[in-house]
This record gives sequence, C-alpha cells and structure tokens, in this order.
Amino acid sequence: MAGRHFLFVPGPTNVPDRVTRAMVVPMEDHRSPKFPELTLPLFQELKKVFKTTDGQVFIFPSSGTGAWESALTNTLSPGDKVLASRFGQFSHLWIDLAQRHGLDVQVLEEEWGTGVKPDKIEEILRADKSHQIKAVLAVHNETATGVTSDIGAVRKAMDAAGHPALLYVDGVSSIASLDFRADEWRVDLAIAGSQKGLMLPAGLGFVCASPKALAASKTAQLKRVYFDFDDMTKANATGYFPYTPALPMLYGLREALKILFEEGLENVFARHHHLAGGVRAAVKAWGLKTCAKEAKWDSDTVTAILTPPGINGADVISTGYRRYNISLGAGLSQVAGKVFRIGHLGDLNELMVLGALAGAEMAMADNGIDVKLGSGVAAAQTHFRASNAVGEKKSAA
Amino acid sequence: MAGRHFLFVPGPTNVPDRVTRAMVVPMEDHRSPKFPELTLPLFQELKKVFKTTDGQVFIFPSSGTGAWESALTNTLSPGDKVLASRFGQFSHLWIDLAQRHGLDVQVLEEEWGTGVKPDKIEEILRADKSHQIKAVLAVHNETATGVTSDIGAVRKAMDAAGHPALLYVDGVSSIASLDFRADEWRVDLAIAGSQKGLMLPAGLGFVCASPKALAASKTAQLKRVYFDFDDMTKANATGYFPYTPALPMLYGLREALKILFEEGLENVFARHHHLAGGVRAAVKAWGLKTCAKEAKWDSDTVTAILTPPGINGADVISTGYRRYNISLGAGLSQVAGKVFRIGHLGDLNELMVLGALAGAEMAMADNGIDVKLGSGVAAAQTHFRASNAVGEKKSAA
Amino acid sequence: MAGRHFLFVPGPTNVPDRVTRAMVVPMEDHRSPKFPELTLPLFQELKKVFKTTDGQVFIFPSSGTGAWESALTNTLSPGDKVLASRFGQFSHLWIDLAQRHGLDVQVLEEEWGTGVKPDKIEEILRADKSHQIKAVLAVHNETATGVTSDIGAVRKAMDAAGHPALLYVDGVSSIASLDFRADEWRVDLAIAGSQKGLMLPAGLGFVCASPKALAASKTAQLKRVYFDFDDMTKANATGYFPYTPALPMLYGLREALKILFEEGLENVFARHHHLAGGVRAAVKAWGLKTCAKEAKWDSDTVTAILTPPGINGADVISTGYRRYNISLGAGLSQVAGKVFRIGHLGDLNELMVLGALAGAEMAMADNGIDVKLGSGVAAAQTHFRASNAVGEKKSAA
Amino acid sequence: MAGRHFLFVPGPTNVPDRVTRAMVVPMEDHRSPKFPELTLPLFQELKKVFKTTDGQVFIFPSSGTGAWESALTNTLSPGDKVLASRFGQFSHLWIDLAQRHGLDVQVLEEEWGTGVKPDKIEEILRADKSHQIKAVLAVHNETATGVTSDIGAVRKAMDAAGHPALLYVDGVSSIASLDFRADEWRVDLAIAGSQKGLMLPAGLGFVCASPKALAASKTAQLKRVYFDFDDMTKANATGYFPYTPALPMLYGLREALKILFEEGLENVFARHHHLAGGVRAAVKAWGLKTCAKEAKWDSDTVTAILTPPGINGADVISTGYRRYNISLGAGLSQVAGKVFRIGHLGDLNELMVLGALAGAEMAMADNGIDVKLGSGVAAAQTHFRASNAVGEKKSAA
Repeated sequence: MAGRHFLFVPGPTNVPDRVTRAMVVPMEDHRSPKFPELTLPLFQELKKVFKTTDGQVFIFPSSGTGAWESALTNTLSPGDKVLASRFGQFSHLWIDLAQRHGLDVQVLEEEWGTGVKPDKIEEILRADKSHQIKAVLAVHNETATGVTSDIGAVRKAMDAAGHPALLYVDGVSSIASLDFRADEWRVDLAIAGSQKGLMLPAGLGFVCASPKALAASKTAQLKRVYFDFDDMTKANATGYFPYTPALPMLYGLREALKILFEEGLENVFARHHHLAGGVRAAVKAWGLKTCAKEAKWDSDTVTAILTPPGINGADVISTGYRRYNISLGAGLSQVAGKVFRIGHLGDLNELMVLGALAGAEMAMADNGIDVKLGSGVAAAQTHFRASNAVGEKKSAA
Repeated sequence: MAGRHFLFVPGPTNVPDRVTRAMVVPMEDHRSPKFPELTLPLFQELKKVFKTTDGQVFIFPSSGTGAWESALTNTLSPGDKVLASRFGQFSHLWIDLAQRHGLDVQVLEEEWGTGVKPDKIEEILRADKSHQIKAVLAVHNETATGVTSDIGAVRKAMDAAGHPALLYVDGVSSIASLDFRADEWRVDLAIAGSQKGLMLPAGLGFVCASPKALAASKTAQLKRVYFDFDDMTKANATGYFPYTPALPMLYGLREALKILFEEGLENVFARHHHLAGGVRAAVKAWGLKTCAKEAKWDSDTVTAILTPPGINGADVISTGYRRYNISLGAGLSQVAGKVFRIGHLGDLNELMVLGALAGAEMAMADNGIDVKLGSGVAAAQTHFRASNAVGEKKSAA
Repeated sequence: MAGRHFLFVPGPTNVPDRVTRAMVVPMEDHRSPKFPELTLPLFQELKKVFKTTDGQVFIFPSSGTGAWESALTNTLSPGDKVLASRFGQFSHLWIDLAQRHGLDVQVLEEEWGTGVKPDKIEEILRADKSHQIKAVLAVHNETATGVTSDIGAVRKAMDAAGHPALLYVDGVSSIASLDFRADEWRVDLAIAGSQKGLMLPAGLGFVCASPKALAASKTAQLKRVYFDFDDMTKANATGYFPYTPALPMLYGLREALKILFEEGLENVFARHHHLAGGVRAAVKAWGLKTCAKEAKWDSDTVTAILTPPGINGADVISTGYRRYNISLGAGLSQVAGKVFRIGHLGDLNELMVLGALAGAEMAMADNGIDVKLGSGVAAAQTHFRASNAVGEKKSAA
Repeated sequence: MAGRHFLFVPGPTNVPDRVTRAMVVPMEDHRSPKFPELTLPLFQELKKVFKTTDGQVFIFPSSGTGAWESALTNTLSPGDKVLASRFGQFSHLWIDLAQRHGLDVQVLEEEWGTGVKPDKIEEILRADKSHQIKAVLAVHNETATGVTSDIGAVRKAMDAAGHPALLYVDGVSSIASLDFRADEWRVDLAIAGSQKGLMLPAGLGFVCASPKALAASKTAQLKRVYFDFDDMTKANATGYFPYTPALPMLYGLREALKILFEEGLENVFARHHHLAGGVRAAVKAWGLKTCAKEAKWDSDTVTAILTPPGINGADVISTGYRRYNISLGAGLSQVAGKVFRIGHLGDLNELMVLGALAGAEMAMADNGIDVKLGSGVAAAQTHFRASNAVGEKKSAA
C-alpha cells in the first residue's frame, strides 16, 4: 500500500528519523576502552527520565516483560505476599508473572475502566500488622483500557498505613510520556520499555530501583541470572555489561534521550496531554464513550473507545488496516471486540492525530457506525487551536 | 518539532522507506564488471515509465533543470526558432533557459490557470510554411498553478498542421504520477526528474529521446558536454557512464521503479486521481477556488488554492509550517501571495492527505479565513469512501 | 580515527551492509494480520541453520546468556543433577548460571586449551545407574580459548552409556559458522545468539529444542516466564510473540538468513575453515603457539594466541586498538594477559583477515615481541592461494 | 562474496558510516525558512577546504565533469585561447571539454608520468605579449597516472611572466586530500567533486571562484544556465538554490566537513602522505616501478604501478576483483594494460591499505608476476611504524 502507514497502536510507537539514523552503526567491541563513553552517560540521562537521583537504572536487552520479571525476582523471595490491582490485560499479565514465579499475590479486582484504588490499598496495608505483604504492584497506565492511576496517591496510602512494603510501578506506557516521579513518589521499582515514550524499537527493558529495593536484592531468594541486578551493577560501574549488549539500541537510546531533553520532559508531557485532549474531544463528538469510566482515569497515551452494541471493534480495526493503512489497537480479554484503541504516545503531532481520527471515522462509517464524517476531526481541531500548539504558540501565528 | 513533518509541496516528495533503505549502500567501482547488472535494467524499466519502446532514456546526475537543458542543447542549434506556451513559473523558466542558450523563442502567453492551447499551436504551425519552427515546448503539468495540459491534443494539432517540429514535453511533475505516453503522443523529448513521482531525492534528471530527436542530435550545434547524448549513449551501451554516477540514487531508482511496477502504473495514476479528487472536494467545501480556471485544467499532482482577497497565501503557509509541521507550496511570481499549493503526488495515501487538509484548515482559520474546521476533511472523506479506496476496495471492508 | 575499524573480536561480528539496510524499518503493529508473513518463515529457516527437522526454534529478545537460561529453566527442576565440562570462561559462566538457578552441577574440570572429553562423560554416565544426571552440558566452541569440541562424539558417548540425560550444547560461537547438526547429534537444547555467525547485532537469543526437550518442559519446575517455552509456542504457532518483539532484529534476521543460504551453509563452514587456516599459518610463522593444545581442538571461529613470557597480551590488544584501529579479543580469567584472540567468524574475507594479521604483527612488534613483519601475512597468503579461495577459484583467475 | 569489499579505486572512495547515516534523511521543503540553517554554513565550511577567504564556492548537483564545465563556461567566451597541459586521461578529458565548448586550446603535451611544467608555461605566457591567452588549465592531481603537479609553481610562473590569464585548477582528486591553497596560489577557478577526499558519493561538483573569476563571469559569453554562477549567487545569498538540490548529499556534506575538521585538514594531508608512503614502499619491495617518473611527481592519493612486460595490468585487476574482493583502478588510454592503480584517498587507514597490498600481491602472483608474498606488506608496515601513525603516536604504545 502506498504512503506512510499510520501507526496508532499504543506501542511500538513511531521511531523518529533521528533515532533510526543513530541506530545505523557498525558493530564494535563492547569491551573496548571507548565503550563507556557511550554507556555511562546513558545511565545518568535515564535517571532524569525516571526523575530520580537516588535510584539506579538497569538496562536489559529484553522487552518490558523482562523488566517486570527483573523487578520482582531481584527483590522478593518464594512465597512472598504481594498486593496487586487488576483492571486490564497488562495488570493481569504482571500478576500472572508474579504468580508463576512463586509469589503469593493478593489480587484486588477493579472494574476495567477504572484503576488502582489507593483507599483500598491503605485499608489492606493497615490490616497487615505483621507486614506480611512485601510488595505493592501498581500499573501506572493500563494500556488495555486507557486508564491512568494516581501513583502519588498510592504512595500516600502506603505512608498513611505506615507500611514498609516496596512499591512496584509498571510505567511501560507512561514513562517518558506522562509525568512520573520515582523519587517524589518513592517508587522502589519502576519499569519501562524502549518501544513507547522512549521512541525506540522494542528490545530494551528498564528497571529503576530505589536504594531500598537494592538493599532488598541482597537477600531476595527468587532465582535470576540474566536479569540479575548484581551482575549488572558490577559491570555497569565501569560502563560495561555482563553480556553482549544490543549496540544499535544503545545508540538509538542516546539519541532518543537527546530528543526528549531537547523538547523538555514537561513539554513532552504537555504535548501528550494536548494530543490526548484532541482524541477525547473527537470521541465525544462521535457520540461514543471511552472505556475509562470517569475523566480522572483518562490516559494521555492511549484511548480505548467503546463501539456501539452490535459492532465489533475488531471489524473497525480490520477495515482501518486493510483499507486505510492505519493500525489501531485491539480490545484484549474482557474488552475484546468491545473497543478499539488509539495509541497517542511517542513521536506524534497534531496532524498525525487528525489523520488517524479521520481514518477511524471512515473505518467506523464503513462498519455501520453512525458517525458524522469530519466531526471528530473538527472537534480535535478546535481543541488543538484552543490549547497550546505542538509547534509554535498560536500567538506567534 | 515532534512527529513526522507533513511534506505537501509538489516536490521533493516523500521517499518511501524501501527507497531510503535501498540507498544505504557502500561505494563501489563504477567501472567494475558487475556494475552493468545494476544499470542496464534501469534503462529498460525507465522506458516503461515513459511508455516508450522506440525511445532512449538518459539519466543525468542533475536536477530537472539539467534535463531541460540537455533536451534543448542536444537537438537544437543557435538561433533555432522555438514555440513555447507560458502560463506559470515553470513554463517561464524553461523558456528563459531556452533564450539564454541562444534560441529564438516565440512565446504564447496564456492566462495563468490555463494551459497549452493546441488550436493556437496548430494555427501558428500551419502558418509556418517554411518550417522555421524547429521545436514546440509544452509543460505537461505546470506545478506553479496546478494545471495539466493535454499533450495528446498538442500532438494532434502538430499532425493536423503537418509540421515537422520536434515536440518537447516537461513532464517533471507528471511523469510517473499522471498518464504519460511518449510513443503514442510521439513526444520527441520528454523530461523528468527524480524528486516527484519517482519518489527519490532530487539528483537525477531524465530525458527520453525519440529516434527523431536522436537523429537531430547528430547535427545540433548548441554546445554541451556534461549533458551530451552521444557520450552517454556510448558509455550506456555497456552499462557505464562517461563520469562517476551518483550511486545511491541509482540503487534508489531501482527500488522506486520496483515499487511503481508492483503497484502498477495505471493504479498509480488512479491513486493520484483519487487523492486529488479528495483535495478538490475539500477546496469546494471550504468555499474557495483553485487557480485552475476550469475542471479540464485540474492537475492530479498539485492543487493551487486561491486565498480570499486580503489574505496572503504566504501567511497560511507560514502558519502551517511553524505551527502545524506542514510544508505547503508557495505562490510564485504572478500568483505570489495569492495562492497556497498542496502537492499530492508520490508516495501518498488518504490519511496523509486528510491530515494535510486538516492542517490547511487550521492554518487558514488562524489567518482569519472563514473556513469551517473539518469541512474539507469531511468532503474528502466522502469522496474517498465513494471512489476506489487506495487500500482495499470498499466491498472488501 | 580515520578509516574502517577492524573488528576482530569473536563477537559481535561485522554486520553485512545488506543486513544493516534491512534493519532500517519503520515500526509496525506486531499484532497485525501481515506480521506472520515476516515471522513464520523465520522459524522454518532457522531450523535449517540448526540442521533440524524435528526440533523447534525459539527466538528470544535477549543475548545468548538468556538463551542459556531459557534452555535450562524450561527443562529442569530445582536440584536436578547436571554434568558439565569447564575449560574456559564461557563454559564456566554457563555452569555458574546453572548453579545459581539451583541445579546441582557436577563439573568436569578440563585443562584450558582442551575441550569436552567424551570418554570421561561416558564413564560417568555409565556409573550413574539410577539416572540421577538429567543433563549433559557441552560448549561446542569455547570462545575464550579457541577450542572446538566434538559434539558428535559426546552424543556417541551418551549413547554408549545408554543414558537418557538431555544433551545441551552452547553453540553461540559455532552455529552458522561451524558445522552443527542438531538432529544427527540429537542435541536436545542447542543455544545460539545473533551477534556471531548470524551476522546481526546482539539482541536475539535462540534455543532449538528437540521433542524430548519439549516433553521435559511440561514437567520442569524451574521458574521462568520471560523465557518460557510454552508462552512462546502458543504465540508462535500463528506467527506472533507473547510480548513486543525487537522488530528491526527480525527484519535483519530474515536478511542474514537469506545471505547464509545464498552462500550455502557448507560453503560458509568451508570459508571459516579456510580463513582460520590462514590465521593458524600466521601464528606458526610468527613462532607462537595457540591456546588450543592440539590441532584437534582448533577452532575455526576464534584463535587465542599465547604471547611470549613477559609480554602481556593486553598490551598487544591496547596497542592494536589505539594505534592501528583494530579490536582484538582479550584473555579472560585463567588466561588473562597470556593471550590475545583473533575472532574470524561471520561476514569476513581473506583481505580483511590479512589486514588484521598485519595489524597484529605491528602491535606485537611495538610491544617487543620478536616477530618478523609480514611473515604471518605471507604464510596466510600462501595458505589462501593454495586452498579454495573465498571468491572465485584460482583456476578461474 | 562474503565480507567487505576493498575499494581501492581513486574514487568513489569509502563513505564513512557517519556520513552514510547523515544522508538517511526524509525529504523536506527546500524553500522552507529553516533550510538555510543547513546550507549557509556549508558554503563557509567549504571555503576552509579550498583555503580561501576571498573566493566563493558553488555547489552543483553534478559530477566533477559538470564543475569543469561550469568553471569554463562562466568565465570564458567562444574562441578564447586557453593553455592546458596534457599528461593523462583526465587532463585530456578536460581539454576535450574545453574544445567542444568552442575554446581554442593550446595543448602542452607532457610525457605521461610527469605533470605540469611551470617553466614551459612561463615561456609561453611571456611570449603572449598581447595576452591572447585567457586561461591556464592545470590538473593538480592526474588520477590516471598518479602524478601531482606543483600548482604554487604554476602561479609563480604566471606571475613571473606578468600574465593576467585566469588560473583554472582541477583538484578533483586532490582537494581535501592534498594541500590545496586557493588564495595563496591565487587559483581563480578550483574544481572539486564529492566522491574523493570529501568522502561522499558522487553527485556534487564544486567550483571555488576568485573575485577575478567572478568579475570575468559578468562578460563571459559561453552559454550556461544549469551551471550558471549568477543564478546560484542570487539564490545562495539567502541559503537557497535555483533548482531542487540533492538533499541527502547536502546533509552528507555537512557531516563529511565536520569529520574533516575534527581530524584537522593538515592531519588529513599528513595521513594521506603517510599511507601513500606505505604503498610506495611496497611497490619498491616488489621490484616494480610507478608510472610517476620521478619522486617529485608522486601522488599521495593514487599510485599507478607498472606491470612487468608481458603482464596485462587488467588481468591483475580482474583477478583482484573476482578472487579477492578488491577493486583496483585500471590503466586508461595510453597506459591501458600497462598499469594497475591503487587509490589511497579518503576515509582510509593503515590496516585497510595493508589488506589491499596483500590482495594486490596475491593477484600479481596469480598472474605470474614474480613478487614475494608479504614483501610489500612488510615494507609498508616498516614505513608505517617508522613514520607517524594514523592512530596514536608510537610513543604512546
């Protein structure tokens, strides 16, 4: 099919040309004296992304799933009790991973379309007088439903309960797109992946561990070698890795970080909010609902749109893909067929989003959804013109 | 600025990823025994693009301007009389080039927004009993005004006049996008460039010469060496060039041709017509006029849109560029400030065009043009859904 | 430093331009209907590399270390007894990984410079009447010492002992460079990485599992999720992955496999033998010894060269790197400082090897080693001219 | 064929990875307000390469042949008398171009293997009392024979004769590799191409014009449009071009210039001298002669090696290409079959040269030339170790 594909799944996201270019590198000796010139600054720059000064960032040649595994296996022991909220496919998969590694997960089932409930967590932690619960797991941004939870509130709940459990946060689809504050929220284990806000291909998993988490890793009994913190810490100290790293990805990461800081993290967050606002305005104009039950759950990186009764979201996606050269995200598990998702994170601007909305409108119309062509686009345009522009401010026009 | 730039000037056009990739080549000896394996098929494939079997295609490391120069200097002599129509900046520049090379150009001034008038040409040629006119120059697609002329009709006019002048056609912004028939129309010198329908960066100029043109080159007295047909013919015969060729461009050309023939030339033309129809529907919905005076002049590769009185087209373009990350084409010369142009040629699809139309709407609104947001997009969507889709046919949805 | 770096570590190896180019891809939806068109053939082609028809290949976004981990954790249970030979840094690290995952490793310590001793293995397995030993671990090519072991002989020894243990083979620096026969040798778990003979960057780990290994995975109790066979098998069946795959690597893999089969696997092996012969001829001409104790241990992918007493191999490497723009491999652990290594695997030809040998000669001379300049080069040239050329045969000259 | 090709023709030269990477750019509007940010610095940086402050540099989308043509057609008139020395294929071709453009060329035939004779030029110019001679053409580095002429001496000869002719110098295979001083030598028209010392693909031709040359262009009557100085000057003043420029080449040029100045021009010249010394030492060790008759003619960018009687140089080249994956330069015209050439310019280092010398040795031996394998390599190694190293100085080893 002619022309550029419109990639609007919530990851992998579009890799900027600068990053693509930066990854076109010849191989080199990863044990050379010059290699640390590449790697040591990466660790420092990544800390800024996590907003941490105390924490330590690990870079694994893996997907985000590997980072999930690393966070848990390095800090917990078999049978440890873990408290986790489930309200979407990714919170579910993380819980499943924890269970398969022999952890005893107390699952808080939340309605899909909502997120982590800090008050419930506080209540449970208060009741856990003997501190059996070693970990609280929270998904910052549930990619399956387009729901963002309030991690600062989770931390406050834990503090209110005076509970020493470690706080684990999946930030795969939030970090580098939404505001994330590892130090301020005292997140002990923050997890990110390369293929979302970091604008890289998949292939790197990141864990940011607090000093408390690092201390826990000294006694944790779950087995790990590939994902071991200690091997990494030793090798990373001088800029090396315990095994051959994925070179092009590291060069790409350097450029992606440069791009993020050139734009400015706060501007990146504002841009995501701005673009997401346009998408939500379109959904409203279409007369449809998002999966997120209330505005407070709205995610600025992905929007899950409920299709009307009798219309399978998968058909909208299929039409978009085959006819209009756009990839939209499918509904997963509980919401399979009930939604289609628009990912709006990473290297994105207003016209890209407007093209995608126009595509979604046509795909919906083709499937019999009663949506007025151009209506969502117009609503998003109005939103974009009213709020800060991605490029220059309106006043400059 | 974040996200992909929307490049909607009428050239250079978007280079497909496949072509970009194909151009990432190490240098090699352009006199090696293997080199002709790359080059010889290029000449054959290019002939299909020009729709010629009798003609010979020349590939110059130059822009289209160089190809203009080559066509004239190889086939004409100082003081030769040439008949040329002027109705836009590019027909103007070609005439200027001819004059500066010492040709005696009889200029037919046509209103900008119209094109070549075959009847006028026939009349003049009929009157030229002694066949002083050696050449008729016609711009197939005037990029400055978005006007396509009927070259088949020009040929018919020349035949009706029984005149032996050579027919020169600038197909820079038409060839590989609009139907072009070198043999059927007996175009003697057809000129193309790499950065339009051929989806490459600028850097290659093409001339397709008929046997009659090649015969004329044997006696033509205008000076040329860099652009000489004869040096090229000798070297090309075995797959080589008289001087070092632009290697990455040749590799890119091979891939671009492959892409064109995979889609099918007729499908490429249909896609351009389909996309252009969407743009024209949008212009109508906006209540604006195109520079093209009548539908018969409408170009399927570029649309020049007249801004309302008091609104400078350059401001719309500037807002688009600074605020919305889109490049639109400026009005040139006679129409400077009066139009903005949307290039819709090359590797393009519906959602790209819809994003661009949405951007144009916002840029117009920002400049006080009374255009309803989303109106042009909706009109284009309606057009796209009604006509053949770029991707799958609607019936398949 | 000007010019191309000479990368002569035994991995990562030089990535061919074709593969680099193939990796320059835009991101795409890894759950799209078209995605399996890329992935399904990869599994089939990889089976040819392992020389298996019965086995199943797993592709993990990881390094070879991850593939080591995957092979063990999917097929063994805590406390299982494992027999492993140690004769270099990589056989050591694998044993270490096994131990840290809770396996009971019976280590056969072999002199560094030698390899796996099938007769010893046979003896131990014969004595293990109750079949407590569940696994035999063998490193096919020990990268640290330049030693290749005879895996066919290991299989024969296991058969002679009539022992049902699974056979695990680390083929990271052999597979796709040296002859490897998963089916014929009934290797149950074969491990490979992308950054050696497969000519890709690091970032993919491969495991080829026999039906017997897959059966074992049904009851194995070691914990794994990221590296789980079962999750992969389910997703791979239709061409997908349980988590986001490293897209550029998969496109690179497709091209690398194409290159391998265009040359022909047997020709690839012959080329490695041919180039290694040149290197060994050079070492002999220099009057030096290789780490490999006898010719039968000689590796065709890496040669470890013993520096004379009083000369630190690290100094030769450092001079080579700083002064001559070449990366040579360091001595590790037991042989640290005593050797320098030349990796000669992957996308390599005679002149590259000769340049590297010339560089090694100068670096040695600079460090006071009494080596005649040009002597190793001449010996390698003689070897190359006498044996099959990498390019055309001599008779064709 | 496996492995990297050894490209040792005297252009195109190896493009550094950084430059390749820099050329992977999306297309953009060459009339955008940002475009001059790319282009204006290029003109300034190029002036440093030519060592001019007074001159003006023109960048044409063409090969060096186009730059030859531009230099002549912009500054001379039909029938103008031109003095030019011929001593190789490229000086021949330039003379041919001048003649075909209607110039009256007085040819000084010099023995191939020698170069420009300043004393002869002085004599002729002295005799030209009426200053009929408008131009002196000198090829700085004759690529066909590996001969460098003394341009400073030519200038002195012209000054001594008190003659006002313009000085035209072809620096295609010298500029950015050999010391070139446009201002000091008062070169009026200096010509360069992108595919030699500038380490780019072919596709850009450069002309550096002195104020005197620019003044001459106001009255010169030879025809030119594509290569016109004036159109360029007007457009370049604000950072634009009169026609669509070859974008990737401009981005590549920016990076190539950055690389040149990072190394330092004088270091670049020293490196070329150093590497050329190694090649010449090898030729001597082989017992062969170079085409250059005396050491004073030796070129530091290309060496033409005379094959012994009865041995066709083309056979050596053919064997090298087919069997050893190396491209050597052929003998052209008068020296066809009598020489093979080694280009040693651009992004090159010692080990690359040593690999090439080893390849040349084998190709010679395969063709029955009595050359001791390794002898040339050893001589070059000795030379390299004795003179300044390309990388670190020996003292640092």
